[in-house]
Amino acid sequence: MKGKLFYLGLIVMFVLSAVGHFAHWDMTVQFILSAIAVIFVAGFLGKATESVAHYAGDRVGGFLNATFGNAAELIIAFFLIKEGLFETVKASITGSIIGNLLLVLGLSLFSGGLKFKEQSFNARLGEHNSTLMIMAVIALFVPAVFVGAEHFTVKKDQTLSLIVAGILIVSYLLWLVFSMITHKDMLADKEMKPDHEEEPLWSKGKSVLFLVVATVMVAFVSEWLVHTLDTFTHKFGLSELFVGAFVVAIVGNAAEHSAAVLLALKNKIGGAVEIAIGSSLQIALFVAPVLIFVSAFMGNTMDIVFTPIELTALGVSVFIASSVSRDGRTNWYEGFLLLMVYLILGVAFFLV
Amino acid sequence: MKGKLFYLGLIVMFVLSAVGHFAHWDMTVQFILSAIAVIFVAGFLGKATESVAHYAGDRVGGFLNATFGNAAELIIAFFLIKEGLFETVKASITGSIIGNLLLVLGLSLFSGGLKFKEQSFNARLGEHNSTLMIMAVIALFVPAVFVGAEHFTVKKDQTLSLIVAGILIVSYLLWLVFSMITHKDMLADKEMKPDHEEEPLWSKGKSVLFLVVATVMVAFVSEWLVHTLDTFTHKFGLSELFVGAFVVAIVGNAAEHSAAVLLALKNKIGGAVEIAIGSSLQIALFVAPVLIFVSAFMGNTMDIVFTPIELTALGVSVFIASSVSRDGRTNWYEGFLLLMVYLILGVAFFLV
Amino acid sequence: MKGKLFYLGLIVMFVLSAVGHFAHWDMTVQFILSAIAVIFVAGFLGKATESVAHYAGDRVGGFLNATFGNAAELIIAFFLIKEGLFETVKASITGSIIGNLLLVLGLSLFSGGLKFKEQSFNARLGEHNSTLMIMAVIALFVPAVFVGAEHFTVKKDQTLSLIVAGILIVSYLLWLVFSMITHKDMLADKEMKPDHEEEPLWSKGKSVLFLVVATVMVAFVSEWLVHTLDTFTHKFGLSELFVGAFVVAIVGNAAEHSAAVLLALKNKIGGAVEIAIGSSLQIALFVAPVLIFVSAFMGNTMDIVFTPIELTALGVSVFIASSVSRDGRTNWYEGFLLLMVYLILGVAFFLV
Repeated sequence: MKGKLFYLGLIVMFVLSAVGHFAHWDMTVQFILSAIAVIFVAGFLGKATESVAHYAGDRVGGFLNATFGNAAELIIAFFLIKEGLFETVKASITGSIIGNLLLVLGLSLFSGGLKFKEQSFNARLGEHNSTLMIMAVIALFVPAVFVGAEHFTVKKDQTLSLIVAGILIVSYLLWLVFSMITHKDMLADKEMKPDHEEEPLWSKGKSVLFLVVATVMVAFVSEWLVHTLDTFTHKFGLSELFVGAFVVAIVGNAAEHSAAVLLALKNKIGGAVEIAIGSSLQIALFVAPVLIFVSAFMGNTMDIVFTPIELTALGVSVFIASSVSRDGRTNWYEGFLLLMVYLILGVAFFLV
Repeated sequence: MKGKLFYLGLIVMFVLSAVGHFAHWDMTVQFILSAIAVIFVAGFLGKATESVAHYAGDRVGGFLNATFGNAAELIIAFFLIKEGLFETVKASITGSIIGNLLLVLGLSLFSGGLKFKEQSFNARLGEHNSTLMIMAVIALFVPAVFVGAEHFTVKKDQTLSLIVAGILIVSYLLWLVFSMITHKDMLADKEMKPDHEEEPLWSKGKSVLFLVVATVMVAFVSEWLVHTLDTFTHKFGLSELFVGAFVVAIVGNAAEHSAAVLLALKNKIGGAVEIAIGSSLQIALFVAPVLIFVSAFMGNTMDIVFTPIELTALGVSVFIASSVSRDGRTNWYEGFLLLMVYLILGVAFFLV
Repeated sequence: MKGKLFYLGLIVMFVLSAVGHFAHWDMTVQFILSAIAVIFVAGFLGKATESVAHYAGDRVGGFLNATFGNAAELIIAFFLIKEGLFETVKASITGSIIGNLLLVLGLSLFSGGLKFKEQSFNARLGEHNSTLMIMAVIALFVPAVFVGAEHFTVKKDQTLSLIVAGILIVSYLLWLVFSMITHKDMLADKEMKPDHEEEPLWSKGKSVLFLVVATVMVAFVSEWLVHTLDTFTHKFGLSELFVGAFVVAIVGNAAEHSAAVLLALKNKIGGAVEIAIGSSLQIALFVAPVLIFVSAFMGNTMDIVFTPIELTALGVSVFIASSVSRDGRTNWYEGFLLLMVYLILGVAFFLV
């Protein structure tokens, strides 16, 4: 029944936001409709991915999660790049990463910690996650410092951005090899396989079909949402940065949010950490670099240089998330601190 | 007898600095007298707090320590804020934090390490302390970057400062709940309860009375000391920053210094770490934010934006203190390194 | 036979680069000849040091390694300082440190990790190495921030540089005392004594003689190499920074590179870490400060202020190397990540 309501909501919201878009309804109404629709289609995409993963096995399933999990963000960003809104893309990448590291992880540890005194997961995974987060910060920080300090030409800036993007993509693909093939057992953890306890929702064929359908729906709804942002931003006097980094990011990660908190409440904190940190690593090491290449193929290369305040937000998020999760032991207070850092950043971005 | 000499010194120095102040003695003489008097009254306040803690039990005792332990600093800062000397307040907050993290902790680990090959304390506490230190640095670093990069108006600057201050106070209060109520046992450590082995000095009634008396004395002597600082600074050609960050901070933390070193020499390194890091956390997460609110109530809101060199000093102190203490194992060389970082910062501040 | 070929190469390359230098051959040819000769003489110096260490025992051996191991770098830098090329000296110090932390350590962990699933060494050593790396970064970072933010006079800049240099030298000497005398056993690890398994190459007398001969040869070849750098840099349009930080650094560390990788392949990862991180610590805490004093004795004090991009390179290298090695467990993917960070920095420096 809960399922039926979900699909009803999915279809209603999708149709409503489509009608709103094509009938040129009031922009605020359009924004609200498509923002809600994004939550439903992201959830649908999540279910479809999980179901496919059930049939394809852990390794391929993990890879599919890695490929489809952040589809909403990738597709939203694609349309923003087409419109040349590079700054909004970077703001939303920033928002997505810090949203996962602080809000999703924070809510999970906090709610899980209220129920269980201490929750733990594989400490080796905690250490590798920390190192990868540091890698991501380095890859974003180095170009910003060099381009800023040495007044690089646009050409040099783009060359550096493409090379760094290539390095990140290779690093991410090898991380999949390392964590899912060569050292899978070392990073394993009972709590990390929550996907396969329940019966799959659909047959193999249906799962693949729904995965395709969901991806297409995400693509449409995301484009409608992006179209409303400009007006919306002006209407409420919000900075583009705040909308990109907080509003879009919270909406785009809705599926991760609920899944991670539910796992934490089942004492499967390893799974929650995997979703929260894993998703942010995927955006930093895979989605963002892919967008650089996409922009290059479209003839106007987006560079990898983030603004000082974006780098600050990313850097502090990585620091505190790494300090909290490195040891593989978590509690409610650590989750609370992550939420407080998110709040500080949110207020600071709002005031810009 | 040692006790009697202390009380004689306390009364003599208090009276001398009072006479010096009201009779307008030479400013250098006034400074020296009140600086020595501060050491005595801080010591008296420390004894009174401990004695009250004995009767009130561990939890309330910890809270009282948290409330009265940094009373001297809070009161000194209060008078500085009344005179609008915001820069001196921030310099002394900076000095207090780095003095605790580098000088107090460094001396404790060094002297304890010369006597014992390796000393250890609860590693979970080491990890939480590190995370809280990082939280404090983030809360000071984020406003500085945003206000600097985005040219915030004074109004926005103050709004951000008040919100961040509120978040820090809530975080600190919940840290007390976490570390003293919900997860007290997990962070416990035999060496961490040094206060209750000896007989209390005074009866319950006397303890409370002396606590009040000591706090009043600290308030007076601190104000007299602050009055002399300006002249003193000019006379010796010292920068306001150096005086605030090193002279005032060393004087104001005299009580912590001796207590922490004594605990380390008794192989109670957990207690020494608690005093040194705990005190610096209290200043960063509670005293500094309270001062922001105090200034707001007095009609002239002090912002939370520290200078680049203060942030550098705070950042490097937190990094090295976190690296040294996170694992819960210490030795003389780690203490020595902390002292060397303090020396580097001291020389750099002196040369400004 | 392998040995005989080495000595033949040593003598031939030394003579060739001498002839090239004194007969004023083409500068590119001179550069190539002396660069190859440096590899041979550095290798010779390494063998001589090891052999002396065999007779002198572990402690003195360690000290000799500490004194002679980085002789090539020290001597190259000495001639650069004589010519007033302070920026090139700092670039080569930067390059040497990041080369050891990223390239040498990265290659070792990567190649060792391909052969062994997980390699481990003493975690206490990992922690102390991390703390010392942070100490080094602090000592270079603090002067840069203070000199930059406060517009220090040249006099103050030099005073601060000399004091910081003195503090670093004392810290390094006490680290030798700590790690080789007072806490030698605590930091020990079976894999850390690879030098003494094989028979020494030479008798005691010959070892000392060869050590002196090798040091003299390194001195000559290094000077010849330095003389060619200017022309070479212009010819290929490479920035002085790139040459100093990557070309010179890779050449100057050739001996460490091969030794560390060989140890890693023998599953003696502790030895490889000791060479890679130990060598970079020696440069940061001993070689660089000694060069400051050398320049002062020569009448023109080099300051300790590095450029923002050098500090960035040093900071990120320390962060990732610390995150990878702190826990005393390594694998191929961690080595790969270090190599990728080296690549990012190399590209960025090349584009400057």
